[in-house]
Amino acid sequence: MNVFGNSLKIILFGKSHEKYVGITLDGLPAGFKIDEESIAKYLNYRRPKPIINTSRVEEDEFEIIGGFNGFTDGAPLTILIKNKDVKSSDYDELFLKPRPGHADYPAYIKYKGFNDYRGGGQFSGRMTAPIVAAGGLLAPILENVGIRCYSRVVSIGEIKDSEEYTLEQLERRYENDLRVLSSGAYEKMMEKILAVRREGDSIGGVVETVISGLPVGLGEPFFYSLESGISALAFSIPGIKGIEFGDGFQGTLLRGSEFNDQLYLENSGKIKLKSNHSGGINGGLSNGNPVVFRVAVRPTSSIPKPQNTVNMKEMSNEILRIKGRHDPCIVPRVVPIMESVANIAITDFLLTFNGGELIGKN
Amino acid sequence: MNVFGNSLKIILFGKSHEKYVGITLDGLPAGFKIDEESIAKYLNYRRPKPIINTSRVEEDEFEIIGGFNGFTDGAPLTILIKNKDVKSSDYDELFLKPRPGHADYPAYIKYKGFNDYRGGGQFSGRMTAPIVAAGGLLAPILENVGIRCYSRVVSIGEIKDSEEYTLEQLERRYENDLRVLSSGAYEKMMEKILAVRREGDSIGGVVETVISGLPVGLGEPFFYSLESGISALAFSIPGIKGIEFGDGFQGTLLRGSEFNDQLYLENSGKIKLKSNHSGGINGGLSNGNPVVFRVAVRPTSSIPKPQNTVNMKEMSNEILRIKGRHDPCIVPRVVPIMESVANIAITDFLLTFNGGELIGKN
Amino acid sequence: MNVFGNSLKIILFGKSHEKYVGITLDGLPAGFKIDEESIAKYLNYRRPKPIINTSRVEEDEFEIIGGFNGFTDGAPLTILIKNKDVKSSDYDELFLKPRPGHADYPAYIKYKGFNDYRGGGQFSGRMTAPIVAAGGLLAPILENVGIRCYSRVVSIGEIKDSEEYTLEQLERRYENDLRVLSSGAYEKMMEKILAVRREGDSIGGVVETVISGLPVGLGEPFFYSLESGISALAFSIPGIKGIEFGDGFQGTLLRGSEFNDQLYLENSGKIKLKSNHSGGINGGLSNGNPVVFRVAVRPTSSIPKPQNTVNMKEMSNEILRIKGRHDPCIVPRVVPIMESVANIAITDFLLTFNGGELIGKN
Amino acid sequence: MNVFGNSLKIILFGKSHEKYVGITLDGLPAGFKIDEESIAKYLNYRRPKPIINTSRVEEDEFEIIGGFNGFTDGAPLTILIKNKDVKSSDYDELFLKPRPGHADYPAYIKYKGFNDYRGGGQFSGRMTAPIVAAGGLLAPILENVGIRCYSRVVSIGEIKDSEEYTLEQLERRYENDLRVLSSGAYEKMMEKILAVRREGDSIGGVVETVISGLPVGLGEPFFYSLESGISALAFSIPGIKGIEFGDGFQGTLLRGSEFNDQLYLENSGKIKLKSNHSGGINGGLSNGNPVVFRVAVRPTSSIPKPQNTVNMKEMSNEILRIKGRHDPCIVPRVVPIMESVANIAITDFLLTFNGGELIGKN
Repeated sequence: MNVFGNSLKIILFGKSHEKYVGITLDGLPAGFKIDEESIAKYLNYRRPKPIINTSRVEEDEFEIIGGFNGFTDGAPLTILIKNKDVKSSDYDELFLKPRPGHADYPAYIKYKGFNDYRGGGQFSGRMTAPIVAAGGLLAPILENVGIRCYSRVVSIGEIKDSEEYTLEQLERRYENDLRVLSSGAYEKMMEKILAVRREGDSIGGVVETVISGLPVGLGEPFFYSLESGISALAFSIPGIKGIEFGDGFQGTLLRGSEFNDQLYLENSGKIKLKSNHSGGINGGLSNGNPVVFRVAVRPTSSIPKPQNTVNMKEMSNEILRIKGRHDPCIVPRVVPIMESVANIAITDFLLTFNGGELIGKN
Repeated sequence: MNVFGNSLKIILFGKSHEKYVGITLDGLPAGFKIDEESIAKYLNYRRPKPIINTSRVEEDEFEIIGGFNGFTDGAPLTILIKNKDVKSSDYDELFLKPRPGHADYPAYIKYKGFNDYRGGGQFSGRMTAPIVAAGGLLAPILENVGIRCYSRVVSIGEIKDSEEYTLEQLERRYENDLRVLSSGAYEKMMEKILAVRREGDSIGGVVETVISGLPVGLGEPFFYSLESGISALAFSIPGIKGIEFGDGFQGTLLRGSEFNDQLYLENSGKIKLKSNHSGGINGGLSNGNPVVFRVAVRPTSSIPKPQNTVNMKEMSNEILRIKGRHDPCIVPRVVPIMESVANIAITDFLLTFNGGELIGKN
Repeated sequence: MNVFGNSLKIILFGKSHEKYVGITLDGLPAGFKIDEESIAKYLNYRRPKPIINTSRVEEDEFEIIGGFNGFTDGAPLTILIKNKDVKSSDYDELFLKPRPGHADYPAYIKYKGFNDYRGGGQFSGRMTAPIVAAGGLLAPILENVGIRCYSRVVSIGEIKDSEEYTLEQLERRYENDLRVLSSGAYEKMMEKILAVRREGDSIGGVVETVISGLPVGLGEPFFYSLESGISALAFSIPGIKGIEFGDGFQGTLLRGSEFNDQLYLENSGKIKLKSNHSGGINGGLSNGNPVVFRVAVRPTSSIPKPQNTVNMKEMSNEILRIKGRHDPCIVPRVVPIMESVANIAITDFLLTFNGGELIGKN
Repeated sequence: MNVFGNSLKIILFGKSHEKYVGITLDGLPAGFKIDEESIAKYLNYRRPKPIINTSRVEEDEFEIIGGFNGFTDGAPLTILIKNKDVKSSDYDELFLKPRPGHADYPAYIKYKGFNDYRGGGQFSGRMTAPIVAAGGLLAPILENVGIRCYSRVVSIGEIKDSEEYTLEQLERRYENDLRVLSSGAYEKMMEKILAVRREGDSIGGVVETVISGLPVGLGEPFFYSLESGISALAFSIPGIKGIEFGDGFQGTLLRGSEFNDQLYLENSGKIKLKSNHSGGINGGLSNGNPVVFRVAVRPTSSIPKPQNTVNMKEMSNEILRIKGRHDPCIVPRVVPIMESVANIAITDFLLTFNGGELIGKN
């Protein structure tokens, strides 16, 4: 199901080994500036980094079908991204030998053997490129109304970044390849990733996203709560196995009197909350605090280490040795993806809420 | 946004202090037996238990508008549940003094003061009664095709149930009021809840759900992955702040070689997985293992302890003392709710996938 | 499929011989006055009229679940309408002998015999009562922003009302039971209906709807054009077999130079159109003219005259004599229904277009 | 709103003067053969014919992103169609002088001047090319389960084709450029079109579609009745101003006893209907008869004759003389478009109804 959203609909298409992957955005109001540099920047954030990632070089040339004179024009906008560096032969032998941790096995059953297994087909991480392109398109539109989405790596395996951070640090999150805020954490994480890589293995981690500048009352009761919309989109991303808002699972250890974010009147006369245990959301609606969520990124499925699998044609047990290029750690690449997830979800919520007032609508 | 689902749509209506809360199911195929006893049973599971919960007695009389001769008939089916024991006056003074942790403040801003604040209005936990009624309706329909959803409490605050369990224990999950499997955990949890209650405070916990019997390949790529659909519905439930599938956040500490669920051929000739770190889901599709997910339930928002808030009319700081009946711990009540969430989501996935084959479709 | 709409969703439930028929409106902004008198008035417009219609007396007591202090509150609003005067026995023998012109035969096949055949079940004209209730709720909300939907009978069989009319005549459209503007047409039509009735037969006609006061640019390109939205809803109504906008089928006889509505500048400085052949819509968007559409209402299916049918159990040919009360002409009753269709569709378009500006949105 | 459908979603993108127009199909089951020749054939049917149409030569090179080894694979399938012969300068002067009968004026207001006016932008008839490509893709898939959609011209202006026809004639409908069945009508229509062309004017007509081979019970009650789904899609097509099913508007002149399609048992033991006044649909569901509908195609908006309009910048009255290439009659080109509308709508209905049984579903 490749359509998502209420007022802004995104539609994902293409596959890992097609000529293109792409995304269509339907429902963007006319009059927003189309910032191609921002799209390129986000796609670049997502590109693999030489030391820690696969050697596949994805240049991500993109082409925009839509807009007029540099602005959105009320018509749908499609971004096509060329798939360049495709080596289908790497995957040929995998067809009947499903890779553990991948969609290979259930997809084969679901689609009765017709699925495009090359590079994981439509289940490939490559499908996140158009999502990031959309995120890059929307980021300056949101920034223009004072909303910013910042993601960052908070842990790689057991190594954690410091919990304290400043806004200035968030702004510089892309300055290192691990998208981590403290240099101490950076070094330990890099060391760990390289060690894991040497073992032919992979490692996971946690990515945190902070959304600032939201109006109070964003989100819809029940089935399109802020948490529902963000989580539905976040779990579309391959490798995400958990999401929590505010204190999340740790919050189950607190008492209500500790968890409740109490209200008070600022000197300025504004209503504020004394804490942010609920991650900026009450009853599915934004409460004026930054929205904070974390996602659990499982260790990369494709690993060079030999693994048990079956040959689905011969119906025999097999040992699988995956060749080709693989990432020992995709966690840093999830950072621009989660930022894009946030940008897309928030734009849809804004267009659904108080439409004309904040962001404009046709 | 009170409509959810693709092939099966559920629509939630009513409010805490209306005459009814209700739910409409649209898209149920004709020919399913309507088991009113199962609905009553689920509603009873959700009722507050004398010691640990509020004294509000919700008898949950319900009325079905739909079906014919005891079977679904292709038309929508609506369940009306009477709201009986309503004391609006308890809430009157709260209108302009938002309760910390509740939707009161963002709802007031969003709806410009027109929102029904009585008992939390549409943001009330009362809205989960129709969801549980729908869960009770669907449970025997799923059971009929071999699918079972079991939820249970795995922790209250820092007290955990044993991680090992048998299917037989799951079947008996409603035999104690805490919906916990080991009697050791039961006693410690009950003690903790009573202590918290004496302090005028509240406590959270974690509820786990296991779904057995799913066909391989259930779920849709990307935006309607099993995780996306289940999480969107789970986060509709008041008080849920996190969800994880399989190893979830703990899984970020593993290596890929540990996390990957390797495949092998059973003696019977069936393809099986050696472990279940991914919680029965790869690439958004069921892989034949039980689907396992856990949700974080925040400590109940409404507590007798005095809290800081503001008077939104006077724009002054206030101390709030919430009167009336309140639950020190809603975690056990979340058990039938999460089972219902699973029942609803899985039915929708089944009707979307291979429609006619497994569950039938008109 | 009982859910319709984009920003405003309506959900229809109940059946002809259930305790209730009902409708839920989800997505209405908070702050609209709930005018119960208007709902009652519309339901009354829809009631059968003594001479021309069946003797079934439907009092249409309704109950509103939703709203707060007389205003919409952002939560869904449900209207329950009691089904009173139900004689199921009239229909019992029809179950296996499908009535020509009704859904009986395809519904039996589709639902494998599980469908509720009593009174046509969910295919009954009775399901239009909640649609009219919703129309009555929305009419004053639209009127408040200057939008009015007027329907009227333009023909019964071959008898036509005059084509010229004044706004004042439209305002008085409910003053006679045939909802026709000229008294000459009224008399001829009534005579015709009574003659048809005496023959045990039925007759159809055409209903025209005029929507005034729309902003320019309402409607969405392509799949939610004004025509698409209105026609999808209009064809939900039992008995509607055609719809045309502006000159419609007659317009195919004109030249482009005659059909095109040319633009000019009024003395006031406003852009106006010289004619209204396109029925107020260009490219799916409103152009400032009144939107005008006509629907073809087939002659009522249920007639006392004997008809050929089959006994689906015995698989034998049969002669069917339908007993009970039947309308020789439902065309006048379609008038408030089409007005309600227009009210619902236009409210949804308004909430989708420039949301905050015209009608407000939460 | 460029997304349509329930189980099969189509998404339209691009504009008249972009590099591409395109369509994405999401929800096609895996395992259908992708017949590129059929797509090419349909696109060719839609191409303008030398004598009667504009001289714009649209070669309609297309590219498929999707499928695997020549079959659908469960992933979305996108068709890109190159826009070649684009002369934007023709349209430059029209920007502030809206063409009567076009979306120019309401689109300018709706999109606050940001809309892409070149060639009508997203309101262009060019957008029907991807719809026809989708129709061409689906035609053989439907044919494979015995379903055929045939459209033909039944009238141009006041000139009508004969009402009687054979299946064999329908099969040969594309053998003449007017897509008319009788050679007598062909000559008169061609003469009329050429006469209208000489006058610098245009002419409309009526296109009829017959769908054979549908299972009984296709369609959904109320809001997704066969009529609702087909009409919503048909009215997306520029220039369509009316639709009627079966006897439609003429049927309002009949008595119920004439209009009702009575049932009988064929010698073969099958249930049949004696007539087809209701166009194969009762209560929104197919009844086993061919589904028959007609659409009214307004005379082409763009005509060389001078017309009144306004200059929206200067706010002055103007005389407009549209240059460039224009069709005096688009009715024959609507034939493959309506066939495609039928193919798309019927595929979606089939995937929604009894999914697995007839057409298969993943």
